[in-house]
Amino acid sequence: MIFCNAARPNPRCLRMYLLEKRLTLPIREIDVDAGENRHPEFIQHNPGGQVPVLILDDGFWLAETGAIFQYLKEKYPVPSLLGATPEERAETRMWQRRIERRITEPLYATFHYGPVAAMYRNRMLILPECVPGLEKLVHDGLLWLDALLAWRTVIVPHRFTVVDIVLYTALDFGSRVGQPCDNGLRNLHAWFAAMDNRPSAPVSLHPKAAVTGIRY
Amino acid sequence: MIFCNAARPNPRCLRMYLLEKRLTLPIREIDVDAGENRHPEFIQHNPGGQVPVLILDDGFWLAETGAIFQYLKEKYPVPSLLGATPEERAETRMWQRRIERRITEPLYATFHYGPVAAMYRNRMLILPECVPGLEKLVHDGLLWLDALLAWRTVIVPHRFTVVDIVLYTALDFGSRVGQPCDNGLRNLHAWFAAMDNRPSAPVSLHPKAAVTGIRY
Repeated sequence: MIFCNAARPNPRCLRMYLLEKRLTLPIREIDVDAGENRHPEFIQHNPGGQVPVLILDDGFWLAETGAIFQYLKEKYPVPSLLGATPEERAETRMWQRRIERRITEPLYATFHYGPVAAMYRNRMLILPECVPGLEKLVHDGLLWLDALLAWRTVIVPHRFTVVDIVLYTALDFGSRVGQPCDNGLRNLHAWFAAMDNRPSAPVSLHPKAAVTGIRY
Repeated sequence: MIFCNAARPNPRCLRMYLLEKRLTLPIREIDVDAGENRHPEFIQHNPGGQVPVLILDDGFWLAETGAIFQYLKEKYPVPSLLGATPEERAETRMWQRRIERRITEPLYATFHYGPVAAMYRNRMLILPECVPGLEKLVHDGLLWLDALLAWRTVIVPHRFTVVDIVLYTALDFGSRVGQPCDNGLRNLHAWFAAMDNRPSAPVSLHPKAAVTGIRY
């Protein structure tokens, strides 16, 4: 397998997952700033045009971070960051979906439609008029989650999971691109500080992060 | 298990999935129009406040359609609408994510922010200024998919999967709430007609659909 990596938050999410699972994969670097992920050869294999990609042993290009997580979990079940039983896995998938829809998806859309709109304009539909609303949506989602975190220290009750990684890498990225978390969200900040202390957090940063100051 | 059902497209998606899998579950009807899914007891069990929900045998409330699909697949593997191998399941999850992000999520958001905004205003953040942009996003996603469907008759190559169900129920719903598919998208219309001919398509409609004319 080959991990198509890039200086972007979703590849970081996969890097952190691999570190937590103690898996090492050969890496191919993709230069997203230069549009390498929009080259015809890349799009032919990955019509979503996004990173990360996991090139499987049979040559198949598997895209979408969540699908890659689950594939690697099926191949290397322990440690499971999804769950050990069908019920645990179901609960994890449920929370992942909630967190993505309410927080990380609007956060990433705000980034694409805002600070880097000029770079992305010929790659995707850019909706700058949605930025203020999407920012409110992210804040609304974080408020909702902050209340839930009054009762637990991780997003899926009692278990550290991929959902913590998905949210942490999104919020850490957001903190440097104009979307800091409201300081009043104390439970969320306590959760974030605990995530930030995991050994996988700094190690998962891309070498470019040291140059640009962006957390990806 | 109990299936918390409602006259909405995502519960229909689960109804169609159950029919295709030949599974029958006891049903509890939730009146979303009356806000039953926002009652404190419902929110306590399902902080996402959405339908459908699958109440498991141990009393756990499993929400999010995609998580319910995967749970039922783990419990009842055949016929598998996700895939028979880790590679097939990975491919299905990848396509499901692409279709949701590019088409069904903005389609449902357009509905919530548009025709029924008054009903939803005290349930969620409403962003009416995003409606024209989201409509463009849906159209852009459908154009992208239409080109891909020139080479195949189902969304995941060679296999009928949950992804077909997810998209079909969303587009059928959209067709009656102001978001018809552009007639020029011929491959997509051919795919839709084939889906529409599956015996599960009409049978999965909620009894209320006959009264309101909405396809859910």
